[in-house]
Amino acid sequence: MSNNEIVFVTGNANKLKEVQSILTQEVDNNNKTIHLINEALDLEELQDTDLNAIALAKGKQAVAALGKGKPVFVEDTALRFDEFNGLPGAYIKWFLKSMGLEKIVKMLEPFENKNAEAVTTICFADSRGEYHFFQGITRGKIVPSRGPTTFGWDSIFEPFDSHGLTYAEMSKDAKNAISHRGKAFAQFKEYLYQNDF
Amino acid sequence: MSNNEIVFVTGNANKLKEVQSILTQEVDNNNKTIHLINEALDLEELQDTDLNAIALAKGKQAVAALGKGKPVFVEDTALRFDEFNGLPGAYIKWFLKSMGLEKIVKMLEPFENKNAEAVTTICFADSRGEYHFFQGITRGKIVPSRGPTTFGWDSIFEPFDSHGLTYAEMSKDAKNAISHRGKAFAQFKEYLYQNDF
Repeated sequence: MSNNEIVFVTGNANKLKEVQSILTQEVDNNNKTIHLINEALDLEELQDTDLNAIALAKGKQAVAALGKGKPVFVEDTALRFDEFNGLPGAYIKWFLKSMGLEKIVKMLEPFENKNAEAVTTICFADSRGEYHFFQGITRGKIVPSRGPTTFGWDSIFEPFDSHGLTYAEMSKDAKNAISHRGKAFAQFKEYLYQNDF
Repeated sequence: MSNNEIVFVTGNANKLKEVQSILTQEVDNNNKTIHLINEALDLEELQDTDLNAIALAKGKQAVAALGKGKPVFVEDTALRFDEFNGLPGAYIKWFLKSMGLEKIVKMLEPFENKNAEAVTTICFADSRGEYHFFQGITRGKIVPSRGPTTFGWDSIFEPFDSHGLTYAEMSKDAKNAISHRGKAFAQFKEYLYQNDF
């Protein structure tokens, strides 16, 4: 598309804000501008521990809903506990909704190893109908909630390279610089500025 | 269909055996015989805490794969912890695969309330393309594994009305008489013998 419009399908206002902030940051952009359009489609999510498979299933639904030829991307975020061999994974959103932060921390109490990784997987369908994947991973540990509890599980995840802060205690820019979502979208942004889509 | 054939879509040999045993038990069957056919289709499963929604999504895929007009059913089983507000729910199969029985029991250690309910949801598509749901629920508690560990989480679930035995410690008939799957399939069997499908 000549005007570089891409559609981000999400119903999560916090994610949208974060992604807008990342994709519009200054880059060597060859005078290219990307216009982000939001669609809050309700996409079904697949049960799987393969995060690309979940993202692809959402991507295909988005393409089916919007029609082929329109560049569109979806993202899915997982929180993988080492001790749980990667679970709750993509199901973390259901645990958050059903149990809340305190009980998520509590169910790890009997386990010494609190390490976890936060993963964002982006599935991008270009105008030719080809799918591309971008993934960002940030390792850290699960801790009792610290900081604002307004964005998902940010207050119980302390990245290893955050100088002891949880995501929720970090500034937006500091978080985006090391976060799973920041890393995934940095790759995606580079791709968008260097390729026709 | 004149010969009362119905297709059960499952790749789980243990479930198939249990269901065959339940559906072929003696009933006042009006001289009706039901022929169970197994198809091990690989169906995608939806992320949801609404168990009917998960079963319906599988049912629709089964109909799409087998063609309309062929009576077919699927089932999905959930293990809902009271303290987790219904989770792991349908995701229990992933927890079992990723973590194993011991860690599932362990993650409940910090919580006093070990109560849980086992739920089987059947989605049956009749030859007219109508969907019917049958659900069986058995309440009990999560306990350290006792009995054979050959069938899912049977060895860590002790129903309240089992006289202190886990599912795994019970005879097949005793289990079917009180189990979530037994209850769901008892309703389904009654429906099949009393209705044209």
